[in-house]
Amino acid sequence: MLQLFQYNWQVRNEWFDWCNSLSVEHLLQNRKGGVGSFLQTLFHIVDVESSYIREMKGEPDLAPNYHDYMSLEQVRKLSDLYHEEVAEFIGNWSSEMDQEIVTISWLNDSKLSCGEILRHILTHEIHHIGQLSIWAKELDKPVVSASYIGRGLH
Amino acid sequence: MLQLFQYNWQVRNEWFDWCNSLSVEHLLQNRKGGVGSFLQTLFHIVDVESSYIREMKGEPDLAPNYHDYMSLEQVRKLSDLYHEEVAEFIGNWSSEMDQEIVTISWLNDSKLSCGEILRHILTHEIHHIGQLSIWAKELDKPVVSASYIGRGLH
Repeated sequence: MLQLFQYNWQVRNEWFDWCNSLSVEHLLQNRKGGVGSFLQTLFHIVDVESSYIREMKGEPDLAPNYHDYMSLEQVRKLSDLYHEEVAEFIGNWSSEMDQEIVTISWLNDSKLSCGEILRHILTHEIHHIGQLSIWAKELDKPVVSASYIGRGLH
Repeated sequence: MLQLFQYNWQVRNEWFDWCNSLSVEHLLQNRKGGVGSFLQTLFHIVDVESSYIREMKGEPDLAPNYHDYMSLEQVRKLSDLYHEEVAEFIGNWSSEMDQEIVTISWLNDSKLSCGEILRHILTHEIHHIGQLSIWAKELDKPVVSASYIGRGLH
């Protein structure tokens, strides 16, 4: 499971790099589907990952507001800042945690297993990155490779 | 890992259902990015999953030709047909298989671990489904939920 998270983190950073070539207008432009723009998608991925990880840790959601992070540099810094805590938590994952139950406040206090939450975080990011790849092609730009193979993640 | 495949199979079938509401023109229309159309994306997902699974089993690639499967019914039938073999293989996965090495003929005879191939199949499907969700919204249609949570997959 760790390798799948490493895949997500690699691909996310490649999209941050890729976004450097975008004008601010294209970065922030509201688009059809997904969560609206390139930047807001990246912010959303970072925010959701951190929120679920902190809920599993029993820590309060940091709940950053997108309107306070409306530049590529700010969202990337936020991603880097949260990454340490996220990577430590994922790195220490054990199969016993799979069945631990956590109450998710923003899902009507649903009681979910940590395994379900973990797999949700994973699929959530890959799904949104797939959306970025369409928007990128619509701008006639080459996209970041989504291939898992060839990343040194065995 | 099995649950992540179950997620993919559920979501794929929901997209097959969803495509029933599309006109043939919209189903086959070539779009920007991805592998071109709704139908060809679904065909590609089915084809790639089967090809890698059969390579891991040491069986020849069935290599279906998209031009022989250009209706929703035919691609769905192909998905159902391959599913039995795929599900059996994934259901019998053991952690020892993770490090087994397989030569992939269509990747210049690259030698990959089965774990890497397995994770590639997983992320490959989720990525392409993310692309469908953008095209669907561009047609102003409600999309299939991508949420892992709430599918009974713990």
